[in-house]
Amino acid sequence: MDFSIRAANVEDCKDIARMITELAEYEKVTDQVKITQRDLEQDGFSKNPFFHGIIAEVPEQHKSKEGHMKIGYALYFFSYSSWMGRAVFMEDLYVMPEYRGKGIGKALMSKVAQLGLAAGCHQLNFTVLDWNKSSVDFYLHQGCTDVTTDMGYHYMSCKGEAMEHLAQP
Amino acid sequence: MDFSIRAANVEDCKDIARMITELAEYEKVTDQVKITQRDLEQDGFSKNPFFHGIIAEVPEQHKSKEGHMKIGYALYFFSYSSWMGRAVFMEDLYVMPEYRGKGIGKALMSKVAQLGLAAGCHQLNFTVLDWNKSSVDFYLHQGCTDVTTDMGYHYMSCKGEAMEHLAQP
Repeated sequence: MDFSIRAANVEDCKDIARMITELAEYEKVTDQVKITQRDLEQDGFSKNPFFHGIIAEVPEQHKSKEGHMKIGYALYFFSYSSWMGRAVFMEDLYVMPEYRGKGIGKALMSKVAQLGLAAGCHQLNFTVLDWNKSSVDFYLHQGCTDVTTDMGYHYMSCKGEAMEHLAQP
Repeated sequence: MDFSIRAANVEDCKDIARMITELAEYEKVTDQVKITQRDLEQDGFSKNPFFHGIIAEVPEQHKSKEGHMKIGYALYFFSYSSWMGRAVFMEDLYVMPEYRGKGIGKALMSKVAQLGLAAGCHQLNFTVLDWNKSSVDFYLHQGCTDVTTDMGYHYMSCKGEAMEHLAQP
């Protein structure tokens, strides 16, 4: 199937917001999603953006049952490792279910890796849910390592009241 | 003990590089540290920096056995959650062993949380080694949650030849 991969622009935020919700439904975490199209527009497409995005698109004749032509996306941002230096973090990688198994996810991830290398990054990092075996297998097949299993690194988060409390001088 | 917390500047990179090595020795990963003072100077203190830093400093009369007055640091960068929006990621938090237990680590982390909130971030994320019980306990005591244990998120990485292979079109 024909598809193209390109940088996301502000007009894509409606579809990115839709696909973020679809991904959260798949990951069973819809109650955690607070983000809106407007947030994405402000945070990704103003000066000093907090993230960048890429979009996978199919031509009109392959549009989805609901009429969508934007059928996959990845979000990423530049990060840093105090061991290895410049890094790129892939926040999301998603392809709509009816378009899976056609190399579109691989093409999106490949593009993030290309953009990272072009910016001098030495690693591409991301997180994955351990019960999502097909994704874990996909990533391991690409030569990725599971840093949590191999080295014992756990991902931690401080938010809401805990973050505000922590920020008290 | 008197100490101060301030934004890092390019002159701090020598001490940051030294403390990164000390932290890596503690974490038993010195073989993985490729970063140099020069990398830190270029990546953190030019246009569009890949990270920001803060330094904990003690006055002359409390300098370390080796004569150091810069005795702790944190590195952070802004990141993004497709659920929650703006986030800040704390890459490193380190206080030299002889200065621990005096609230300096807490003050550094508190500053990262403050800077995150000021930039509109809704969460502060980081990783921790699961065998480092004192650090895990410290973070849990601050109200942080272990996203790996609670939700099953694993941290994954693609680097070196795997990243270059992935980036092939």
